Amino acid sequence: MSKVIFGVDVGGTTIKLGCFDTEGNLLDKWEIPTRTEDKGSNIIGDIAGSILVKLAKDDIDKKDVIGIGIGVPGPVKSDGNVIVAVNLGWKDVNVSQELSDLTDIPVRASNDANVAALGEMWKGGGQGHSNVVAVTLGTGVGGGIIVDGKIVNGATGAGGEIGHIHLEDNETEICGCGGYGCLEQYASATGIVRIARKKLADSSKDSILREEEISAKSVWDAVKAGDELAIEVAGIYGEYLGKGLAAVADVVNPEIFVIGGGVSKAGRVVIEYMEPYFDRYVFSGAKNVKFALAKLGNDAGIYGAARLMIDK
Amino acid sequence: MSKVIFGVDVGGTTIKLGCFDTEGNLLDKWEIPTRTEDKGSNIIGDIAGSILVKLAKDDIDKKDVIGIGIGVPGPVKSDGNVIVAVNLGWKDVNVSQELSDLTDIPVRASNDANVAALGEMWKGGGQGHSNVVAVTLGTGVGGGIIVDGKIVNGATGAGGEIGHIHLEDNETEICGCGGYGCLEQYASATGIVRIARKKLADSSKDSILREEEISAKSVWDAVKAGDELAIEVAGIYGEYLGKGLAAVADVVNPEIFVIGGGVSKAGRVVIEYMEPYFDRYVFSGAKNVKFALAKLGNDAGIYGAARLMIDK
Repeated sequence: MSKVIFGVDVGGTTIKLGCFDTEGNLLDKWEIPTRTEDKGSNIIGDIAGSILVKLAKDDIDKKDVIGIGIGVPGPVKSDGNVIVAVNLGWKDVNVSQELSDLTDIPVRASNDANVAALGEMWKGGGQGHSNVVAVTLGTGVGGGIIVDGKIVNGATGAGGEIGHIHLEDNETEICGCGGYGCLEQYASATGIVRIARKKLADSSKDSILREEEISAKSVWDAVKAGDELAIEVAGIYGEYLGKGLAAVADVVNPEIFVIGGGVSKAGRVVIEYMEPYFDRYVFSGAKNVKFALAKLGNDAGIYGAARLMIDK
Repeated sequence: MSKVIFGVDVGGTTIKLGCFDTEGNLLDKWEIPTRTEDKGSNIIGDIAGSILVKLAKDDIDKKDVIGIGIGVPGPVKSDGNVIVAVNLGWKDVNVSQELSDLTDIPVRASNDANVAALGEMWKGGGQGHSNVVAVTLGTGVGGGIIVDGKIVNGATGAGGEIGHIHLEDNETEICGCGGYGCLEQYASATGIVRIARKKLADSSKDSILREEEISAKSVWDAVKAGDELAIEVAGIYGEYLGKGLAAVADVVNPEIFVIGGGVSKAGRVVIEYMEPYFDRYVFSGAKNVKFALAKLGNDAGIYGAARLMIDK
């Protein structure tokens, strides 16, 4: 029997599991619900049970399992200790130790955003590169930084928190993080809606956007339809995003940015409106960087989790 | 005989060499001139000769030499190839290969700023930490980033170029890098002089600074003497520096910043005027970071170069 690796992505409502070969081919994937009651005390047992059942069902010998990689929604220390994962009810849980004790299989754990970045590097938009920054433009703006093939977790698990780079001194609203003028306040799904609303209020220009519910999708659809005001919104959006990513490139000088999350569903147009501003603001020596769209969608987490078990 | 490591720091006028034991104790150090004529073609031979003479003189057996680490003023690829080092006249020189061929000793090379950061981590202001950002506040502003004990070189050797993070949209002067509004335009030695000149011109306040040649040193001396205008200058300086370092912390979440370079000779006052702004602009999850002054001065390069030969 050839060797397999399990990749587990723990979310607030669902736990995704994948079984991979050592080349990163997904052999099988499935989901189980996340039982967050009782401070999430059933979660690790449920994962262990699900994997042990899979081994029995497919007649996989434990000695053929290289390990279990797991992504968790919270900061994870290098020893596998999760300091806190609000969405799971966890506080000070050593997920690696506990899951390994229950399954008798080696386990490595990391933060879910960073693990997803590793997945995109391995088998997604960043394939073939080892210095990758994954950017998630969703409800918030997240980041995962890979240097020489390894995740940058940071001293307190806050590595890659690029959504909270301060960009705008004149911002009057407070960001979810307690700061103000953060990249996330402009480049997230809610950010682009905020920019659009402000633009609509300040301008008397006609726009498709005046006639419908404004969302990240409706803004980008209007941009694609040639709507002048929406194009101005995209320019403002692109300037903030370009300025933020330029700062990231000045620090870690990646080969490629992989752009994912809900906002990126609009496609390369998101990159096109950002790139001229990135070029304006980035250090010339770090300018030579590619931009790609993420490819793995919701599976990035299980791929990256499995990748934790390789090359370390 | 116990094992030794050589650390070499190649500058535009002088090459510094150090001989270390494996614990990082400096056993001996010396310098040779940098012969930049003929496209710097004598430099590697001079280094090899100097090390071979040292081995003969001290009766050190080659098998007791773990290796030679070398820091070079330019981007260095992971195979030891120096793409360009303007100050040396080098273009496409594989320093690791050539020095190793001449000495029959293993060689590892990296960029000098990054190597100095590694030195400060090993035996300087960052000792005891493995996630370190070294900041050099000199004629320019440089950076060296260490993640999990390893240098972040970046895809094109531009990792840690934090001096060129764009901070000021309203800047009218161009930075040396061709961009504008870069951290370096405010936080370097020339940056603080520029801020002071502007403040003196805009204000009618009395100040010690009106009576003397303005330099980074005279500004900080005036701050320490309680000069009101100089204190305002330090505040502006601190805000730019704090904002820049906050962006760096949002990306790589270090345990400690080690501040060196000419401007830092003023002492902890430089940190004191920066820290409140750092706290204002940094992501809360990355806030818990220390600030220390660099300790090794001009020896940081030879320490860090030697360190390249350990743990890799």
